[in-house]
Amino acid sequence: MQIAILLFDRFTALDVVGPYDVLSHLPGAETVLVAEHPGPVTNEVGSLRLVADATLADVPCPDIVLVPGGPGQTAHMDDGPIRQWLRKADSHTAWTASVCTGSLLLAAAGLLKGRRATTHWLAADQLAPFGVIPAADRVVFDGKYVTAAGVSAGLDMALALAGRIAGDTVAQTIQLAHEYDPQPPYQAGSPATAPGGIVDTLRSRSHLILQ
Amino acid sequence: MQIAILLFDRFTALDVVGPYDVLSHLPGAETVLVAEHPGPVTNEVGSLRLVADATLADVPCPDIVLVPGGPGQTAHMDDGPIRQWLRKADSHTAWTASVCTGSLLLAAAGLLKGRRATTHWLAADQLAPFGVIPAADRVVFDGKYVTAAGVSAGLDMALALAGRIAGDTVAQTIQLAHEYDPQPPYQAGSPATAPGGIVDTLRSRSHLILQ
Repeated sequence: MQIAILLFDRFTALDVVGPYDVLSHLPGAETVLVAEHPGPVTNEVGSLRLVADATLADVPCPDIVLVPGGPGQTAHMDDGPIRQWLRKADSHTAWTASVCTGSLLLAAAGLLKGRRATTHWLAADQLAPFGVIPAADRVVFDGKYVTAAGVSAGLDMALALAGRIAGDTVAQTIQLAHEYDPQPPYQAGSPATAPGGIVDTLRSRSHLILQ
Repeated sequence: MQIAILLFDRFTALDVVGPYDVLSHLPGAETVLVAEHPGPVTNEVGSLRLVADATLADVPCPDIVLVPGGPGQTAHMDDGPIRQWLRKADSHTAWTASVCTGSLLLAAAGLLKGRRATTHWLAADQLAPFGVIPAADRVVFDGKYVTAAGVSAGLDMALALAGRIAGDTVAQTIQLAHEYDPQPPYQAGSPATAPGGIVDTLRSRSHLILQ
């Protein structure tokens, strides 16, 4: 079971590593980080680099594709190597997944037309123009497509996907090995629960966060 | 504010990237991944490489040190370059932090003697021999030392630490930007809530997970 995780300049690191650390522990999983060019790829902050071990051409037929988000995805919304690879790879996948604004890339590639999908709450209005039915849920399954809300939602998505692929016991074993019993010190993780002033602050900075 | 995150062969990726993605968004933060040697460092699964941009010697006086866990930490429990760096760096830090079995490295370096600390639940009995008072909490503050339980607990630790450093509003803003409103699909994240059979399975494999 080959799992291809896409990297591009200015990706969000946790979008990649949350799902990676769950899915790479599935029995039989072979996880590969892919990018247009092999070698280090720098995240949105600029101080973290993950190594892409394969080019897009090296991984034409993955079983699972996972697309992270991050401001750098905006550079690949127009047609180009990444969109072309996504379309070809998707024609082979058992599951095509995204975290955060990664779903906008899937949508731009035409893969989510007529399907329900989610994304980072600040980007919620950017799905409909691609013919996607926007959903406010944290994790959305529609056929073989599974999308997660912002950044940390990739962990919940990956555990749910692990359960569909390998069964509840395997997914729960991974959850316990990762001690994923979240206890956030604040209840500010969604616009519904965060203080209004903080929601407003982030809305006013959304162009910085998303682009 | 320089934040040094330690890498070593066979680290756990989420131990690094969970806290990284929180702390690197603090105002004035300069985050640097450090290792004995610069260049790519491979995680425990073997399919993910993070680039160390600095050697231990390059970062002698960080403001914050963060030590991840992972089976590779066992190679550094005896005295050597990493323990020596930890002791020197700690003499300068405002905060010294760990995730998962990273606390065993801090303990082995003598930094947690007489202090309360936590670690991965499978390693809970390994703190006391170093004179540490083991705590079962998910995040433990004792003076400038803050330790997190297994893997995903690094996210909760980093948000709590962000609050202490920069105040609740900044920490909550980071939480909302990361949409950290966890909704695990299972309630199997701690030995207290996971099915007993899964707890037993992991206990029987603990040598594989921890070493």
